[in-house]
Amino acid sequence: MKQIGIGLAGFGTVGAGVFKNLAKNRALLSERLGVELAVRRVAVRDLKKARSVEAPADLFTDDWKKVVDDPAVQIVVELMGGIDEPLALITRAIEAGKIVVTGNKALLAEHGKEIFDLAAAKNVPVFFEAAVAGGIPIIKAVRESFVGNHILSIHGIINGTTNYILTRMTDAGLDYAEALAEAQAQGYAEADPTLDVNGWDAAHKAIILASLAYGTWICPKKVFVEGIEHVTARDIAFAKILGYRIKLLGIIKADASGEIEVRVHPTLIPEKHVLASVNGVYNALCVHGDVVGETLFYGRGAGQDPTASAVIADLAEAACASATRRDCGFMPHGLYGDCKALDAITCQYYLRIPVDDKPGVLAQVAGALGASNVGISSMIQPESAGEQAELILMLHDATHAQVRNAIERIQSLACVKGAPLLLRVENFAA
Amino acid sequence: MKQIGIGLAGFGTVGAGVFKNLAKNRALLSERLGVELAVRRVAVRDLKKARSVEAPADLFTDDWKKVVDDPAVQIVVELMGGIDEPLALITRAIEAGKIVVTGNKALLAEHGKEIFDLAAAKNVPVFFEAAVAGGIPIIKAVRESFVGNHILSIHGIINGTTNYILTRMTDAGLDYAEALAEAQAQGYAEADPTLDVNGWDAAHKAIILASLAYGTWICPKKVFVEGIEHVTARDIAFAKILGYRIKLLGIIKADASGEIEVRVHPTLIPEKHVLASVNGVYNALCVHGDVVGETLFYGRGAGQDPTASAVIADLAEAACASATRRDCGFMPHGLYGDCKALDAITCQYYLRIPVDDKPGVLAQVAGALGASNVGISSMIQPESAGEQAELILMLHDATHAQVRNAIERIQSLACVKGAPLLLRVENFAA
Repeated sequence: MKQIGIGLAGFGTVGAGVFKNLAKNRALLSERLGVELAVRRVAVRDLKKARSVEAPADLFTDDWKKVVDDPAVQIVVELMGGIDEPLALITRAIEAGKIVVTGNKALLAEHGKEIFDLAAAKNVPVFFEAAVAGGIPIIKAVRESFVGNHILSIHGIINGTTNYILTRMTDAGLDYAEALAEAQAQGYAEADPTLDVNGWDAAHKAIILASLAYGTWICPKKVFVEGIEHVTARDIAFAKILGYRIKLLGIIKADASGEIEVRVHPTLIPEKHVLASVNGVYNALCVHGDVVGETLFYGRGAGQDPTASAVIADLAEAACASATRRDCGFMPHGLYGDCKALDAITCQYYLRIPVDDKPGVLAQVAGALGASNVGISSMIQPESAGEQAELILMLHDATHAQVRNAIERIQSLACVKGAPLLLRVENFAA
Repeated sequence: MKQIGIGLAGFGTVGAGVFKNLAKNRALLSERLGVELAVRRVAVRDLKKARSVEAPADLFTDDWKKVVDDPAVQIVVELMGGIDEPLALITRAIEAGKIVVTGNKALLAEHGKEIFDLAAAKNVPVFFEAAVAGGIPIIKAVRESFVGNHILSIHGIINGTTNYILTRMTDAGLDYAEALAEAQAQGYAEADPTLDVNGWDAAHKAIILASLAYGTWICPKKVFVEGIEHVTARDIAFAKILGYRIKLLGIIKADASGEIEVRVHPTLIPEKHVLASVNGVYNALCVHGDVVGETLFYGRGAGQDPTASAVIADLAEAACASATRRDCGFMPHGLYGDCKALDAITCQYYLRIPVDDKPGVLAQVAGALGASNVGISSMIQPESAGEQAELILMLHDATHAQVRNAIERIQSLACVKGAPLLLRVENFAA
């Protein structure tokens, strides 16, 4: 049987998972594909490091250039992490006409345009299913299955770590620090969880999804990104009373004018919406197309095996790849424009304000909102202990500019005793 | 821009939807694909019939051979319904080397083997995303995204009509006839709903999914198919008390020995399982792969636009199709065997038995079950009015042979006053 030579750069969790599962399901893959996927070379940073998955020692090198340059390697799989080295590796592979498979979301979000411009110029396919939502085949769905659709919106729970933390805060009433510590103990959060909890891991994925949906690369600086570090168990409890769950959502939308929204932030979503019941480390994405209507994809968004499943699907496709234009992995088109500025984006809001527990406070706050033309849809004022109280307001649709303006007015009030917390609500209205 | 000529056979709901949406999103598709999809010819049975979607009169013919034979047609789309004519059309198209797109699930379930044998021999791609679950890209997911997985199981709500009927019986307490009449009034059930309610529409889809998952065509006669006509609102209510919802499920599984189960029947599923909350005309499929783990796909399984979205995705792929082996649409492989006989299949059961309201009845029934080595896990005996009562039993795992044997014993008891109702339970244990 014909062999296709694979070079693996990176043998961490995912790289080792690819090697392990290629071996485990070798017979099945060969039968299905009619070719054999053979790993010919593996690059690692430290040859002496202990490996959780066994592989022949003579496959390994600590020089990734040897993987790319090996004439027996036709497909280069980049799973090493980081930005500069992977970019150099992928560039070198494309220049050499070798098909690339990568799961590097940060790299694609930061350097997608140059990578795919080069890939198109050299007519070399680049596959990246593993970069978004692990085992969920969302890249293929948006790029191929919904090719006949204007993508109206994508709403995604696309970071398992934060979803685990928010789930535990919701179900067990843990506070943020407790839930994070538990996630770390369970192996669901890294020792340094910064990129997960600050929303940027999700933002990288949202940028990739936006590129597929709208055919244009959004500059990361233009994306509004807010993490979950400031969400308290109290906010989650108030949201519950109001009929909502709080999830870290990636939101990608285009309006009729062709302006695009891309944002990531903790979001109140109606408890009856299907995304509200996606719990723990699971990921899910709602994709709304103008022809297909509402769809949902659900599965494990991270972890050794689910992500390896996505890489192996890309390897199978790479092995069969033809030289058609679509296989370059990114479909630029001129139908959509730039990323909308946050100030111009309209949504509903949850606003929690620490205030003096005195008469007249609500009137002053309501006056500040009214002066910015922001309406209140509902309110909770929990019993306070002592002199300080809290107002929890649900606000009607308003632009971020209006709400920013209103919050400035509110913060200038003498009765307001600290920084208000603003969260966004997504009601999934059609 | 290069044009790809499309011949459309059938201009009913789906065919007209394809034409309408190709026109609506023409610019987007051309930008994404780099080619234009141009409908060159449309075959209909009756040229005089009024059309819900406008199309130039000179496209139409009442002779489908003219569509296939037109040298300007490179892709033939079969959406005419039926078996014999579509088979003749697809055979003629493949013989002529023209790529085929079809949504005809009955045809593929009955004649898939011969169609794909011919396609492989002629190296002509056949695409069929629209044949299963409308706008949900489940064919592509199983065939391509999960190519590196042994598919452990697929559980699907893959018939919208029956799901609508069961949802209304569950939520509004309607009986079967009322819910069916409502579905017909809403346009969710056809005037003749036989193929939907008797389970065979779902069975055709299950056979296609099994072929992709296990690389072998299952003979329809070997598939156990039970419809929903005998499910009563009372059974739904009892199931609710026991913590279950009743759904018409297509179940496709393989065990470690390579034996395959394919069955369609009303099934009790735990109310907490995500499939239990898939309501109305929506479809959803849980796919469990040995590498990717548990995944779920959800969306509209029928209707003009969702199904057109799937056909257009196939057209886009057909337009880019290369001559690789995978594009022939079916991947035979020798790893799995034949379809398991029903008698050998193990599951849990719900059993409702009309009995005399007399002391000792439960002992007799329990004795009959015990004699067949079938255990009872729980029981309800509602208050009876009059002399006749009902026993509702949840049974532990047992083979169908055991349960068949037990039911024969039960029916021979003098205290049993009618045919017991047997439903199957799916607990989604790993």
